[in-house]
Amino acid sequence: MLRKRLLYLAQLSAVGFGGYYIGQNKEKYCDFLYGNSVTVDGKRILNKPGLPVFGTVSAATPFVETNGSKDRISQIMKYGFPGLDNVRSYDDFVLSYDRRNRVPHWVFEHITKDHIAKNDAVDRSKCEFHPDESIHPFFRSQNTDYKRSGFDRGHMAAAGNHRLHQKHVDQTFFLSNMAPQVGEGFNRSAWNRLEKHVRKLTKVYDNVYCCTGPLYLPRRESDGKSYVRYQVIGANCVAVPTHFYKIVVGESSDGTLDMEAYVMPNQKIPDETPVSSFMVPPETVEKAAGLLFFDKIHRSKLNRINGKKV
Amino acid sequence: MLRKRLLYLAQLSAVGFGGYYIGQNKEKYCDFLYGNSVTVDGKRILNKPGLPVFGTVSAATPFVETNGSKDRISQIMKYGFPGLDNVRSYDDFVLSYDRRNRVPHWVFEHITKDHIAKNDAVDRSKCEFHPDESIHPFFRSQNTDYKRSGFDRGHMAAAGNHRLHQKHVDQTFFLSNMAPQVGEGFNRSAWNRLEKHVRKLTKVYDNVYCCTGPLYLPRRESDGKSYVRYQVIGANCVAVPTHFYKIVVGESSDGTLDMEAYVMPNQKIPDETPVSSFMVPPETVEKAAGLLFFDKIHRSKLNRINGKKV
Repeated sequence: MLRKRLLYLAQLSAVGFGGYYIGQNKEKYCDFLYGNSVTVDGKRILNKPGLPVFGTVSAATPFVETNGSKDRISQIMKYGFPGLDNVRSYDDFVLSYDRRNRVPHWVFEHITKDHIAKNDAVDRSKCEFHPDESIHPFFRSQNTDYKRSGFDRGHMAAAGNHRLHQKHVDQTFFLSNMAPQVGEGFNRSAWNRLEKHVRKLTKVYDNVYCCTGPLYLPRRESDGKSYVRYQVIGANCVAVPTHFYKIVVGESSDGTLDMEAYVMPNQKIPDETPVSSFMVPPETVEKAAGLLFFDKIHRSKLNRINGKKV
Repeated sequence: MLRKRLLYLAQLSAVGFGGYYIGQNKEKYCDFLYGNSVTVDGKRILNKPGLPVFGTVSAATPFVETNGSKDRISQIMKYGFPGLDNVRSYDDFVLSYDRRNRVPHWVFEHITKDHIAKNDAVDRSKCEFHPDESIHPFFRSQNTDYKRSGFDRGHMAAAGNHRLHQKHVDQTFFLSNMAPQVGEGFNRSAWNRLEKHVRKLTKVYDNVYCCTGPLYLPRRESDGKSYVRYQVIGANCVAVPTHFYKIVVGESSDGTLDMEAYVMPNQKIPDETPVSSFMVPPETVEKAAGLLFFDKIHRSKLNRINGKKV
């Protein structure tokens, strides 16, 4: 009986998510990204988008180290904090810092047409990558960690989403907002196209809320067991994530909410791969990241998830 | 000049920590465990025990999901929270849960003679391992995750430290207090000896404060690069830590404070290996774990660290 149920769930997964592109070793990451179920008391149950999400995280008043104005932070974080570990806010984005891995857990942005409009007063070429002094020196990444590592200092909050003031774009260059990304074929192409796609959503939605971060996904190895394996770079052992995610909610003027969720492998991706092929069910990202995204919105209140009617 | 300084520091490290036993692949883990220095703005500086530790973590009022009494929690956490991620308290211990890895970040205990005294009203054999319903089902480990994995459900807060009431020992059997440990030769021997050593400290000190948790240490591989690699078990991908740490502070009746810090590899360890050979400088554990231990005690106020006068 249980076996039958599991087979049924496995089939559902195969039908539902078979088309997603999760890198060259697609099948090996499947447990995390293709399974749309959760194990409770030993039983695997299907995890529908409408499953009530425990509201404990957002219910707490988080301790936020504040640079930005309270109003702006409230606006950015309108739909809930994905987690509460080492949260700090900047003038135009909020992040949670992973002190063990020296990269963010998540970075939250609120983007409108105004934030991304061409602005002659803002010059990205004036920006410099700099260590974030607000992070304890034990856990602070440095430019020297990235030097000669072969990896880009990849923005989590994209510089191009913060064009209202020079200070806003400057702050996206804090190393606390970076994670090591493969440069050619990823940061400078596929990932960049995903960032542009998110900006284009401001043409459709009045408000775009975007959460971005790293993943460390397990892979089945030749011994049949699953392992998480990732490189660390520099004297401060900065983690090189295996994947990155983006979870986006678009809010229309009539209050309609649509969600899109993406996971991309941190590797060279063929230029012709469409952004849509990286869509994954948001729950799979939540389970892999240990975070709950937009938990102030009950999933059943969403209009569409990844383009499909809820 | 800088080169000379680095050489000097390297020599210091070699002299100071050469005797530590960090498992079979000792030299490969050395960056994290032997280096007693920190990189600031590209320079490696010696990190003396007296280095001021940023007090931000303990200064914040943490959000604690409470089972135990406020007074007891204050007593257990007297010397500061190592981190503030998903903190939850039980009647006789406090833990921070790593939702990504489905094991604790840290577990804090306050132990006295009374807590470990023989008590006929308490029967450990009545205890059962059970999932912690206070953890969201996405991130909750289950008994089935451990079944046939080859790993023990290893207590972080040790059952033997909570003998005042049956409820106290019962709560140490929550799976949120467990991490996968090698059974034979580790959990049932070397690690057990370390737990017994901590209990024996109550003969010397009025109050013993003990923080325990997992580590995921990078290793240099044959390509010359460093990687973190660890197995994950079960449908919920519970992480198998590469190492475990214990940081202990003993408080004498006159207020004198001594600290001991241990790191053990999660592997079979020869029976004759003395517990003292696993001592490491506490700062190395802090850097590897992304946590700050006993940060309400300035290190210069400690009398001894690992048996040596500060």
